[in-house]
Amino acid sequence: MSGEDQYISSTQNPKIKRLLALQEKSSERRKSGLFVVEGRRELQHCIEAGYEIESIFKSASAADAADADFIVSPHVYERIAYRGSTEGVVAIVRAKPHTLEDLLPSLTGGVGGGSLFIILESVEKPGNLGAVLRSADAAGATAVIVCDPLTDLYNPNLIRASIGACFTVPTVACSSEDCIRFLKAHGVQILTAQLQDSHLYYDTDMTGPTAIVMGTESTGLTDQWRQAADAHIRIPMLGRLDSLNVSVSAAILLFEAVRQRENMVLST
Amino acid sequence: MSGEDQYISSTQNPKIKRLLALQEKSSERRKSGLFVVEGRRELQHCIEAGYEIESIFKSASAADAADADFIVSPHVYERIAYRGSTEGVVAIVRAKPHTLEDLLPSLTGGVGGGSLFIILESVEKPGNLGAVLRSADAAGATAVIVCDPLTDLYNPNLIRASIGACFTVPTVACSSEDCIRFLKAHGVQILTAQLQDSHLYYDTDMTGPTAIVMGTESTGLTDQWRQAADAHIRIPMLGRLDSLNVSVSAAILLFEAVRQRENMVLST
Repeated sequence: MSGEDQYISSTQNPKIKRLLALQEKSSERRKSGLFVVEGRRELQHCIEAGYEIESIFKSASAADAADADFIVSPHVYERIAYRGSTEGVVAIVRAKPHTLEDLLPSLTGGVGGGSLFIILESVEKPGNLGAVLRSADAAGATAVIVCDPLTDLYNPNLIRASIGACFTVPTVACSSEDCIRFLKAHGVQILTAQLQDSHLYYDTDMTGPTAIVMGTESTGLTDQWRQAADAHIRIPMLGRLDSLNVSVSAAILLFEAVRQRENMVLST
Repeated sequence: MSGEDQYISSTQNPKIKRLLALQEKSSERRKSGLFVVEGRRELQHCIEAGYEIESIFKSASAADAADADFIVSPHVYERIAYRGSTEGVVAIVRAKPHTLEDLLPSLTGGVGGGSLFIILESVEKPGNLGAVLRSADAAGATAVIVCDPLTDLYNPNLIRASIGACFTVPTVACSSEDCIRFLKAHGVQILTAQLQDSHLYYDTDMTGPTAIVMGTESTGLTDQWRQAADAHIRIPMLGRLDSLNVSVSAAILLFEAVRQRENMVLST
């Protein structure tokens, strides 16, 4: 422990009140440019992604508690952590800008050489966006672009549901207009997921640079995206229900692109 | 309203206390053979699946409140419902047996003529099982079989996460031993999802009768299943994280079977 280290035993401590505000209010995150990460694995991915850690809080019961900026009592830790105290780490981290321009170097990446994007329009639930990021990580997607989002990219539920994929997958928030312009300028085909007026996804060529665009479960995609599309694709719904979770749909579509690209690599 | 109808305004009412016990305790569900369903859509699927409804509770604020066995005050409804009061319906339903024998008539069903099972070993979280059921419904799976489950099939989190798919997809709980014997007796190939010693899932033929077996996220499959397998399959993990949500994995594998079977139908 350095001289600055502190033991905090009250939830009324200003540093704890600031941390709670960052967890609970997107306005606080926006104003300060800071956010909160919980969990060792998540923090590891965050550091590897080049984020600047402002301060680390550990529970006094954590084995390596001495290695923190602030050690907090189990009672305080209980208040600031969503999960149980087994992990014992919560950190305040400095946000980074996420712009479409940041994606330029990765435009030639992806399985089989073509870029592979998931675009979400107006996703409502941070947990859904987090789960989509986890699917995108697994499929080696180039990036996830969130258009006109109703959540910020540092919402605690988002980070939690992504189990850290929000740090491993490049993520950008922008307007639908800017996103469409960006994709068209870089020759990325736009495939919109929609039930009406669409082809089965596995009959659609995804071997070239591809963006898969998904709307909300409740209202679907706007006309702006439907009209910008190179093709409309659908997952056949063979049961009695009429929708899949958005992270499940994203994974099915992304892994079809992976499959097609692997087959292409093998057959050339 | 019939003569038996009642207005309930206290959470201490014996009928409400019984309903809460059925929601909260699997032991109560087991003892009584009853469980609780919330939501209009879920209840509709439940009725269509032939379940016997014991009693229906509606919030006094529901438009069709008169059409219920018990009308409850908004305060009481708040206590018994997980979701907001917009839906206004909670029912007590009689459980049904779910045995492997029940699946015999459906063994020749499924897309392309072959049966398609998802087997989950020792799934821990009811919510995960519910989400798998939703994926299984979408892919038109024959059934979901849960081996040595740590949850009962009528857990409220399961029903909620499945958005009613627990009633549209045949579901059986049994021992791994009985399940393996059943699959082998009926010529269903066993594909275990595992990272080690496995083939890429899309290089594996799933056009015949197929059971896809998945373990828990934390511990994977037991040796019993690995040894019973006709083939081991894996989803390539192309990012930084090492696992997918079980309902996402299930959907990727199920829809690959759908794709292969559709292509088979088209090419014959």
